[in-house]
Amino acid sequence: MSKHIAGPEIERLIQLLARIPGLGPRSARRAALYLIKKRETLLEPLNRAMQDAVENIRVCSICANIDTSNPCTICNDKHRDPSTLIVVEDVSDIWALERASVMQAYYHVLGGRLSPLDGIGPDDLNLKTLRNRVTNGKMQEIILAVNATVEGQTTAYYIADMLASFNLKITRLAHGIPIGGELDYLDEGTLAAALQARA
Amino acid sequence: MSKHIAGPEIERLIQLLARIPGLGPRSARRAALYLIKKRETLLEPLNRAMQDAVENIRVCSICANIDTSNPCTICNDKHRDPSTLIVVEDVSDIWALERASVMQAYYHVLGGRLSPLDGIGPDDLNLKTLRNRVTNGKMQEIILAVNATVEGQTTAYYIADMLASFNLKITRLAHGIPIGGELDYLDEGTLAAALQARA
Repeated sequence: MSKHIAGPEIERLIQLLARIPGLGPRSARRAALYLIKKRETLLEPLNRAMQDAVENIRVCSICANIDTSNPCTICNDKHRDPSTLIVVEDVSDIWALERASVMQAYYHVLGGRLSPLDGIGPDDLNLKTLRNRVTNGKMQEIILAVNATVEGQTTAYYIADMLASFNLKITRLAHGIPIGGELDYLDEGTLAAALQARA
Repeated sequence: MSKHIAGPEIERLIQLLARIPGLGPRSARRAALYLIKKRETLLEPLNRAMQDAVENIRVCSICANIDTSNPCTICNDKHRDPSTLIVVEDVSDIWALERASVMQAYYHVLGGRLSPLDGIGPDDLNLKTLRNRVTNGKMQEIILAVNATVEGQTTAYYIADMLASFNLKITRLAHGIPIGGELDYLDEGTLAAALQARA
């Protein structure tokens, strides 16, 4: 709000809410008003949840996952398969893969992707810890579950090269047509990959 | 997340964020992760802002606006025109009208609209305080800035009737074509109103 029509506390709340991805300035105002109206059922519980998060969030020293324990819930889970390690760019990728719930493997979060244009080189990613885990662990397969972007694929090549001397199977996610996808709407690159990998 | 792949604090944060209008379950996960990553620059300031809001939010005893002071910033503003009162359904309508910044008037928040189907009658709205303000104030014009919905218009008729015995000019927002609107995309009702109100 350009003019002062509400107290500074409300304007500050709106400004901060507007910085959350998915909320623009307009929806931040609506969100602020909704929070204020639902003070006891939403604003106060959310405030406590954020306080808990501030106090308890840890970065896992093994896989760089974000959690409230260190090692994280996944690294602490003894029922997973220690022979498979899934390498992802970001914590959100772990969440996405866990929702698919296909594999019970362990993860390693790179914390980004190689991107020379953005000045992100190998030293900026969690590659040293990955190398250490591979050296000391009993992995048989490394799944490079990076994004299907140029940077993601570059990162995958780099890691495959880095781990080439180990006796490991190094795999990647398959490219192809998304489930439910219509050919007519897909780009040529995806169609070409789907044709080449036909089975 | 269906399975426990992150601590309960994080899952609770996601659940609460998903209840904010504008954020669904998917964007709530992204928002939670973003907040956690921007812990010092966003999560902690937002947490403090919410705490401030919880402690300081007041409902204005004059106009039912939500603010951190009572009377609210607008009712306390002595530079506004005391002869005009704008009646709105909700606090968000004040914010919207103030952004338009056409009039420097005072407001009255009804806290809803008449809706027999939802069981909302005259006693559920801030009509008694409105009547008192009109009785004791020096208003010359009441602008019924309610929504252009059936319930909004019903509410406007009811208020116009309630205030008929006072020597007041009672007006409403004009109906017509939105600025930038294309005729081809507008509904018939709006076009008919715009034609009838041509000038």
